Amino acid sequence: MIDLTLIGIGTGDAQQLTLAAIRAMNAADLILLPRKGEEKSDLIAVRRQICADMLTSATKVVEFDLPVRRAQGDYLGAVKDWHDAIAACWAAQIAHHLPDGGRLALLVWGDPSLYDSTLRIAERLRGQGMDLCVTVVPGISSLQALTAAHAIPLNALAEPVIITTGRQLRDHGWPVQADSVAVMLDGGGAFQAVDPAGITIWWGAYLGMVQQALIAGPLSEVGPRIIAERAALRARHGWIMDVYLMRKEAK
Amino acid sequence: MIDLTLIGIGTGDAQQLTLAAIRAMNAADLILLPRKGEEKSDLIAVRRQICADMLTSATKVVEFDLPVRRAQGDYLGAVKDWHDAIAACWAAQIAHHLPDGGRLALLVWGDPSLYDSTLRIAERLRGQGMDLCVTVVPGISSLQALTAAHAIPLNALAEPVIITTGRQLRDHGWPVQADSVAVMLDGGGAFQAVDPAGITIWWGAYLGMVQQALIAGPLSEVGPRIIAERAALRARHGWIMDVYLMRKEAK
Repeated sequence: MIDLTLIGIGTGDAQQLTLAAIRAMNAADLILLPRKGEEKSDLIAVRRQICADMLTSATKVVEFDLPVRRAQGDYLGAVKDWHDAIAACWAAQIAHHLPDGGRLALLVWGDPSLYDSTLRIAERLRGQGMDLCVTVVPGISSLQALTAAHAIPLNALAEPVIITTGRQLRDHGWPVQADSVAVMLDGGGAFQAVDPAGITIWWGAYLGMVQQALIAGPLSEVGPRIIAERAALRARHGWIMDVYLMRKEAK
Repeated sequence: MIDLTLIGIGTGDAQQLTLAAIRAMNAADLILLPRKGEEKSDLIAVRRQICADMLTSATKVVEFDLPVRRAQGDYLGAVKDWHDAIAACWAAQIAHHLPDGGRLALLVWGDPSLYDSTLRIAERLRGQGMDLCVTVVPGISSLQALTAAHAIPLNALAEPVIITTGRQLRDHGWPVQADSVAVMLDGGGAFQAVDPAGITIWWGAYLGMVQQALIAGPLSEVGPRIIAERAALRARHGWIMDVYLMRKEAK
């Protein structure tokens, strides 16, 4: 049997690790670290450093190359095929390193519940007959790192907030039932799809990391600055992860 | 000057504390712990224990009685008056214990960004002319403790999720633009306001605490069980805090 623990590690600042996360890392027989290619090498460097700093047990750390998602064609189809390919990678690593079962841990950026596919990939392995017990250790999500960095609440008083993707915002516009909209997985500038009048934006990139960048203000004023800054940062670092919250003035 | 740090402490399990939270607690001159009356004494007991377990510095811990929110009349008006009264309590404690300024920390249940009023109360003090610098240390929210306990994602693949209150759900029904709805601050059973057909619910109370209770399943089947269990638990423990996620079958 494989005892799989998905450990939320926050967004790059090892200080965001919970005590439960550190304990779960040390309780594992094996931690698998995915490599996502040269341009995203900062992401594996953070995980390597967390392992180096936090492991005091005999936990084995193994790196493996993550397959690449195809960029063209149907988006959801490409994502599902990619998850199948990742599940196959995990299965091969498990067969090789834990042939008789054991405790496997994966270090999940942010929190495993929010726009992360690790739980879905684990479900595939179970569907393929693997005897898998999944435990989740929550971690600080990038949205929490964002609101903390700006010292703002996610929701307006007693009001709802919608968490959505850049793709959804482009396709469907501002959600009718929330004045607060948090956007993740935006390839860049999806906020241009909404009328900026009366909207404030709080944006952050590389949250919790040394590269952290923050911009906040009226969307009409800072929107173009965010787009320029995002492009410049992406060019400088080779990759970018960012997230933002927008709020409409109360009617 | 008052250097105020709002520290998210998770939902009662000290293992959910981040390293940053523990560091911030120890960096404070003063931690104020609010007492919320006898029936919610578990909540201050958890904070007392966290202080006892995590403080290794000379941080002073002071308890104070939180004013009571009036239950009748206009809800938002009552909340705003209550926040004014809490701000006055803080100001009195600060004047007494940090007359020359210093580092004050407050331990916020869950995460300071999500349905928590500490940031708004701090804003009141700043509005009254206090020289206040606010820092936020994010913590594991009850929604994250919920999804971790059930080992489920918050959002469906590439889909939005709305976080809302029991009051909003009762008043406005199921939000049109999300198939995943997380509900906080529900006084009990607001899910009865929606047609349960095709909806799955994951419910949790006292998340992370020894009293933790979980129920999941089709809303039509488990809805009545949640209502009964919630009433029984509330009677047994004298208080309850619960949260749930509902998801509609993909169309």
